[in-house]
Amino acid sequence: MQWIFDKAGEVSAEHERQARERQAELTKPPGSLGLLEELAIRLAGLQHSARPRIERPAIRIYAADHGVVAEGVSAFPQEVTVQMIMNFANGGAAISVLARQIGADFQVINMGTAHPVPDHALVRQAAVGPGTRNFCESAAMSRGQLEQALAQGKSSVDEVIKAGADLFIGGEMGIGNTTSAAALACAMLDRPAADLVGAGTGVDAAGLRKKIAAVDRALSLHRTAFGDPVSILMCLGGFEIAALTGSYIRSAQQGLPVLVDGFICGAAALAALGINPSIRPWLFFAHQSAEQGHRLLLNALNARPLVSLDMRLGEGSGGAVALPLLQAACRLHNQMATFAEAGVSEG
Amino acid sequence: MQWIFDKAGEVSAEHERQARERQAELTKPPGSLGLLEELAIRLAGLQHSARPRIERPAIRIYAADHGVVAEGVSAFPQEVTVQMIMNFANGGAAISVLARQIGADFQVINMGTAHPVPDHALVRQAAVGPGTRNFCESAAMSRGQLEQALAQGKSSVDEVIKAGADLFIGGEMGIGNTTSAAALACAMLDRPAADLVGAGTGVDAAGLRKKIAAVDRALSLHRTAFGDPVSILMCLGGFEIAALTGSYIRSAQQGLPVLVDGFICGAAALAALGINPSIRPWLFFAHQSAEQGHRLLLNALNARPLVSLDMRLGEGSGGAVALPLLQAACRLHNQMATFAEAGVSEG
Repeated sequence: MQWIFDKAGEVSAEHERQARERQAELTKPPGSLGLLEELAIRLAGLQHSARPRIERPAIRIYAADHGVVAEGVSAFPQEVTVQMIMNFANGGAAISVLARQIGADFQVINMGTAHPVPDHALVRQAAVGPGTRNFCESAAMSRGQLEQALAQGKSSVDEVIKAGADLFIGGEMGIGNTTSAAALACAMLDRPAADLVGAGTGVDAAGLRKKIAAVDRALSLHRTAFGDPVSILMCLGGFEIAALTGSYIRSAQQGLPVLVDGFICGAAALAALGINPSIRPWLFFAHQSAEQGHRLLLNALNARPLVSLDMRLGEGSGGAVALPLLQAACRLHNQMATFAEAGVSEG
Repeated sequence: MQWIFDKAGEVSAEHERQARERQAELTKPPGSLGLLEELAIRLAGLQHSARPRIERPAIRIYAADHGVVAEGVSAFPQEVTVQMIMNFANGGAAISVLARQIGADFQVINMGTAHPVPDHALVRQAAVGPGTRNFCESAAMSRGQLEQALAQGKSSVDEVIKAGADLFIGGEMGIGNTTSAAALACAMLDRPAADLVGAGTGVDAAGLRKKIAAVDRALSLHRTAFGDPVSILMCLGGFEIAALTGSYIRSAQQGLPVLVDGFICGAAALAALGINPSIRPWLFFAHQSAEQGHRLLLNALNARPLVSLDMRLGEGSGGAVALPLLQAACRLHNQMATFAEAGVSEG
């Protein structure tokens, strides 16, 4: 899996400069579109085009189960992972509705669940095992499984690029995966469990105590691995989180901008950046979730989220909700008239 | 103009209840869509429908000139108001691009400029005078002009409703109008000029001092009028701001939800609420701008903006940028499967 260390695509300072120049000529007071101007300029550099465009977003949802549910960390039974995979594919989940709204290329990838996933045209079967092991007792996955999960992230990005995607949104589903994400973030940021564990999809106070205890146990058990982000991911990650990590790295390597969703995707981004810091320019952060620890994670990444709506659903939903802002940034940049074109005085 | 005091439309608690019930049945952890859930529930109550929809937004841009520019408060010459009206109509302005993105019914209304506005299919000629008078020296407009401007806001809302609009976005253009908006907000909130005057479209430090001085002079001059929001609007407002005020009041009276744009629209909303507090439930606030004083204004209204992107352009641009979030809220509410429909366990 040497590919994960390959350098990310180059950012074109020249196209950033051209885009910045164009922004100054558009019929508006300088800087008055705020963050939308910066987004357009950044995308110009990434896409090596003075006229950046986000018109063909692709969404890939990675789903998997987690052995750590044995610790009582989730309010939902593990059957829900499979049920939600089918709900994604059948069009009834939040991300299904949002994918339609933004016209995204959409697919669900079964990375390995405790219960079998029926075949469906929109579901790719790519299980690397029947869910991870309980990382309170051993590494969550083997090195072979990690390699396979990272490679699945890589190949799904290669596919969406072939299909013409101009932006990648990763999503995830997996009962128990906020616990895995929190553990991963604790290890990457060297923080205690209490700083990053939140209620997730909605455990009560007793459930929250169990989550914190489970993460603390796992951090003690695996501490010797913490020098190496790859080992951290193997010990504490999930199959879907590793696939996300691989997809973010591959996107950046192939020059495809990424819109990172919420807390779990953020933890995958943290792992990806730990493994390969060169990918940072390619990551946009969609939203600040209501999940405790997400703010801390975003701050650590020096990331400014596009929206802050108290969402805590995952699935890539925050990414899809925020996508129209990136599109607006590009369309404003490309379609607005210049002062000269419109005959407007520059003041 | 007695109509401005007529009560706003009723909010249906029964439809809010039905929508809340549906939200609890959708395939997601309770509350996990955060603000998007609250928006859908609120819209259900406003639209008297358990399945609220925002699919036909209408944008009306009111433009006018301001006598207070004589005080040197703007970085742009007054010609720009007319030039930008034509830019709106010709499709080259930010709001023109955004109106296309969201598929909005779009029109510009000339409320009265210092220079003549050429005829154009997308421009309604409704001038109530050649710009306001300098409110540092006298009331900005006569009672007759105020009445006419409010009535134009009313009639444009009546028109968009007839055309099938399900949401109203007001926008504005007028060199000098952040000074008018700041003065208005100071008078309504009983605050000194320094609290609410900002750089607007981009004056320098000297320009900022002139703006503060102008607003302070105006506040002293018109203080006796401050008991009555209608008089405040007449003394310190602009024709476009009064039209916005009228449009917000009429929208609420006719049961049409409003998405309030930035600082200037916020000042118009403040005036509208001062005149007719019953309209509050009908107002959604699109964004927090970079304009100083806007945060203060939003706090005074107890308003939570949908996005915060450091925009400070006006034109209704923040409203159009935020609109997809309201649409996402409605579509998620209407199109997601329930636990029963999808066969997902409720945990």
